[in-house]
Amino acid sequence: MEQFRNIGIIGRLGSTQVLDTVRRLKKFLLERHLHVILEDTIAEILPGHGLQTSSRKMLGEVCDMVIVVGGDGSLLGAARAWRGITCRCWGSTGAAWGFLTDIRPDDLEVEVAKVLDGHYLVENRFLLQAEVRRHGEAIGQGDALNDVVLHPGKSTRMIEFELYIDGQFVCSQKADGLIVATPTGSTAYALSAGGPIMHPKLDAIVIVPMYPHMLSSRPIVVDGNSELKIVVSKDMQIYPQVSCDGQNHFTCAPGDTITVSKKAQKLRLIHPLDHNYYEVCRTKLGWGSRLGGGGD
Amino acid sequence: MEQFRNIGIIGRLGSTQVLDTVRRLKKFLLERHLHVILEDTIAEILPGHGLQTSSRKMLGEVCDMVIVVGGDGSLLGAARAWRGITCRCWGSTGAAWGFLTDIRPDDLEVEVAKVLDGHYLVENRFLLQAEVRRHGEAIGQGDALNDVVLHPGKSTRMIEFELYIDGQFVCSQKADGLIVATPTGSTAYALSAGGPIMHPKLDAIVIVPMYPHMLSSRPIVVDGNSELKIVVSKDMQIYPQVSCDGQNHFTCAPGDTITVSKKAQKLRLIHPLDHNYYEVCRTKLGWGSRLGGGGD
Amino acid sequence: MEQFRNIGIIGRLGSTQVLDTVRRLKKFLLERHLHVILEDTIAEILPGHGLQTSSRKMLGEVCDMVIVVGGDGSLLGAARAWRGITCRCWGSTGAAWGFLTDIRPDDLEVEVAKVLDGHYLVENRFLLQAEVRRHGEAIGQGDALNDVVLHPGKSTRMIEFELYIDGQFVCSQKADGLIVATPTGSTAYALSAGGPIMHPKLDAIVIVPMYPHMLSSRPIVVDGNSELKIVVSKDMQIYPQVSCDGQNHFTCAPGDTITVSKKAQKLRLIHPLDHNYYEVCRTKLGWGSRLGGGGD
Amino acid sequence: MEQFRNIGIIGRLGSTQVLDTVRRLKKFLLERHLHVILEDTIAEILPGHGLQTSSRKMLGEVCDMVIVVGGDGSLLGAARAWRGITCRCWGSTGAAWGFLTDIRPDDLEVEVAKVLDGHYLVENRFLLQAEVRRHGEAIGQGDALNDVVLHPGKSTRMIEFELYIDGQFVCSQKADGLIVATPTGSTAYALSAGGPIMHPKLDAIVIVPMYPHMLSSRPIVVDGNSELKIVVSKDMQIYPQVSCDGQNHFTCAPGDTITVSKKAQKLRLIHPLDHNYYEVCRTKLGWGSRLGGGGD
Repeated sequence: MEQFRNIGIIGRLGSTQVLDTVRRLKKFLLERHLHVILEDTIAEILPGHGLQTSSRKMLGEVCDMVIVVGGDGSLLGAARAWRGITCRCWGSTGAAWGFLTDIRPDDLEVEVAKVLDGHYLVENRFLLQAEVRRHGEAIGQGDALNDVVLHPGKSTRMIEFELYIDGQFVCSQKADGLIVATPTGSTAYALSAGGPIMHPKLDAIVIVPMYPHMLSSRPIVVDGNSELKIVVSKDMQIYPQVSCDGQNHFTCAPGDTITVSKKAQKLRLIHPLDHNYYEVCRTKLGWGSRLGGGGD
Repeated sequence: MEQFRNIGIIGRLGSTQVLDTVRRLKKFLLERHLHVILEDTIAEILPGHGLQTSSRKMLGEVCDMVIVVGGDGSLLGAARAWRGITCRCWGSTGAAWGFLTDIRPDDLEVEVAKVLDGHYLVENRFLLQAEVRRHGEAIGQGDALNDVVLHPGKSTRMIEFELYIDGQFVCSQKADGLIVATPTGSTAYALSAGGPIMHPKLDAIVIVPMYPHMLSSRPIVVDGNSELKIVVSKDMQIYPQVSCDGQNHFTCAPGDTITVSKKAQKLRLIHPLDHNYYEVCRTKLGWGSRLGGGGD
Repeated sequence: MEQFRNIGIIGRLGSTQVLDTVRRLKKFLLERHLHVILEDTIAEILPGHGLQTSSRKMLGEVCDMVIVVGGDGSLLGAARAWRGITCRCWGSTGAAWGFLTDIRPDDLEVEVAKVLDGHYLVENRFLLQAEVRRHGEAIGQGDALNDVVLHPGKSTRMIEFELYIDGQFVCSQKADGLIVATPTGSTAYALSAGGPIMHPKLDAIVIVPMYPHMLSSRPIVVDGNSELKIVVSKDMQIYPQVSCDGQNHFTCAPGDTITVSKKAQKLRLIHPLDHNYYEVCRTKLGWGSRLGGGGD
Repeated sequence: MEQFRNIGIIGRLGSTQVLDTVRRLKKFLLERHLHVILEDTIAEILPGHGLQTSSRKMLGEVCDMVIVVGGDGSLLGAARAWRGITCRCWGSTGAAWGFLTDIRPDDLEVEVAKVLDGHYLVENRFLLQAEVRRHGEAIGQGDALNDVVLHPGKSTRMIEFELYIDGQFVCSQKADGLIVATPTGSTAYALSAGGPIMHPKLDAIVIVPMYPHMLSSRPIVVDGNSELKIVVSKDMQIYPQVSCDGQNHFTCAPGDTITVSKKAQKLRLIHPLDHNYYEVCRTKLGWGSRLGGGGD
């Protein structure tokens, strides 16, 4: 069992409920004689907090655990901020019940106490790193917990590109774009686009074409260690964009190459012991519940 | 490098082209002073062959390599016949160019020679084992290289069942049925039903609901080591069937439990050195070819 | 405005709630001095009812309006029973809130009174007629309010057939089957199979292939007056079945022809004045509700 | 039978093959003593043509028939240019074999002669008109033969909007956008997005949500005379765009209303007598061909 001593707190801005939760969390952690470090931006709107503060990026280096108070979006932002280190991250939602952030505000102290006492599950989630290259030079780089998306940006609708996986040519496509998603992201944008749900423990990447011209095109699931290369066609005057988790847009030019692969460092998510991935699916996706009768 | 000395031959019945290929293969192997063993049923229609014969099931135990002359269907049948042993299997098609059986009849001697000389790739493919249980007793068991399918059989259309993965309840469903497919099977029936393509190297299983009543239902990809349990509802008078690779039908009763998991033994497929999975996809699924211009 | 004088009642068997509703309905109609006619089978389990009775088929000829107490299934059955006459039909559900049967039991007397007083909407729904022909002879015929489905029945999975529309060859298909649906049926089985929702006022038929081998196959919507012809391949030993609304199964042989076209007679459904088709969709399909802000 | 006397020619720019076809067409028509009128832009690159010229918009008013030499895109552009008049249009492709433009260059003179001699089919295709309104004022208007598309433009991904059909509220959606397509457009962008194929004779409009958040969302087909209203949410700071046939982009603001309805004037397409819509589908979509054996 790990000992958590230095606890970071990140809070989503613009919500009084999040601020209340951060205050309760601070009080509770200090009573347990733990060292609490506030992220810069939330610290600014909590005057007189009397705590150490840190940038989002450094927080991962100085803390044993970081608690994200907010929804999925806040966790995505926090997750992308840490580079090159293994961090501990755990989400508590002040708003909607999210996929990654699974403690309800009412249960805050009880659930945090359980984690501090060692009653928790750790789940590793991997991130993708995307790099745009032009004439052999890297011109943009980004990380994504959910997905790397090639999309038309301001240009006209259709993008023409080639896809290579582990150096093997897969296909040429004319499409609105391409989504490359992690298991975490498989229940986000990729799902709307027809991709499968992938269990978070699966070491895999899904590639989902967006409105492909070729009607026989389908989502492809490959090993998580695969190296993807997307080559924007030289023949069309299109300037598509690459986005990571819907942020960090890079504009590509004809002939540019986008590589996508798994980051070495994982995100460690801490869940309550009774965490059930499929229960979250049922709630978020509106699936029905269990039959009356049981089985053998 | 392995030495192949005892070579088995299985041939699809009912095709004169397959018989010709088997004869050429026998001649070629004998000239290389190898020991050739014919499968029983093909041996019967090759009078005067002068070779050792064996049942399909024993063939795997006495041979270093088995060559299947036929299409995907023949390889599926051969693959399911071996239980409890690691076998070597390699496909040569006398008919259509298939996913698993990738040597064209014209190239027969040249390509087989390359394999015998050690120029080949080995690809492991896993099989699923399905078991139907009633009141705690196993009442049926089958293996599948492609898919285990729960379907209505002779009964009315809709089946009501619960799905559990690794002991966790996933959902209750009303649907026409459920497809559980390997990566090998992901380009077969599961693909028609909306499942993703899964690269053969991926250690994963896909679960595809068939015409679910719940419109938010989606294919789910889980780790290949997952244990699946499907419980047929006790409340409906339905007698659905379980099929393995479209064969081996077991009739279920209300309350029966179907478990599906990976078999310990793998199927070893031998491919030519220039084998490219995506090229097979492009050919089989009718995908377009490479753009004129290359990338960076 | 029509005067309703002879009112028929059909009730789903096997539900005490339906029986209660039928009794309340009878009492209410008699108090308004209307002539009430019970359908045979429900009459049998209402001893001492003292009313005229009639077969389901004759009911349409002797009544101005028929009230169906039951769910969608009961209305489907009632709708198919009337041949060659224009009937009036109106649904009251004793069970689930259905697409076609939209009065809740609690509102029974109030809503029926509104209809009798002329406050109602009439909606025409068309039915399909299917005919199976062998060597030029009709061997089976059925009507459907929802859908005519060609499916494998007891045979193996895949059916091979040709589709013709208005005499024009459309395509050859290998598939699990084919769904031909009315707008009414477009929210039933065809929807699970990937067909579009079609508004009931639309004079159109949708053809939905079931798990086609050809990945570029898509649902096709054609004019409601189109004549469809499906020819089961002579080359395969398959005996698929044709079902109308999930009932009335006909077994086909290789070479048989199935024709599907619109019936001349329409089903007239009576709805409350505030009936909104899309509200029913929202409720049945679980769509979200209106945004806070309105538009221009 | 109509007499064609004044024949207009429109040609796609930038293709020498199109120019050759235009020259052959001019020569052939003049030999038949017909009056030939060239569209302005193609006339400019045919010096010394000696013909009357006209703007694209006026061409429809002065000609009995207009021949479009080019692909689908050229016909789309020509079709949108005519407002308020019934025009005659017929396509001859100098490039790819298109849905709307179905004469191959080699058959040019033979096929045109057939049409001039009265051997042709006329097919009416309708166009959609879209209008963007802000605070009750029209701020943009466009016509479309294929589709009117609401899409994110330069803004962030998701659009929130309400959909009304014939004044009835249908649903609120969060999605990438919405496609409203004619039967003509049903085989274009809407098909990639999961919409059905609609036969050109069908008087219907299909509404296809683009990557909706609500997984139970489906394409809806409504009567061609329906009035659609899309209200962009006031609550989000998004500035989506409306495009007609992938052209004519209008930028919307929160609260704007987009109305889409059928134009009164139809486009008349002239086809060879042996034109078969489904044959075009088979060629364009790569469907398989007819079975060996025929039916009853």
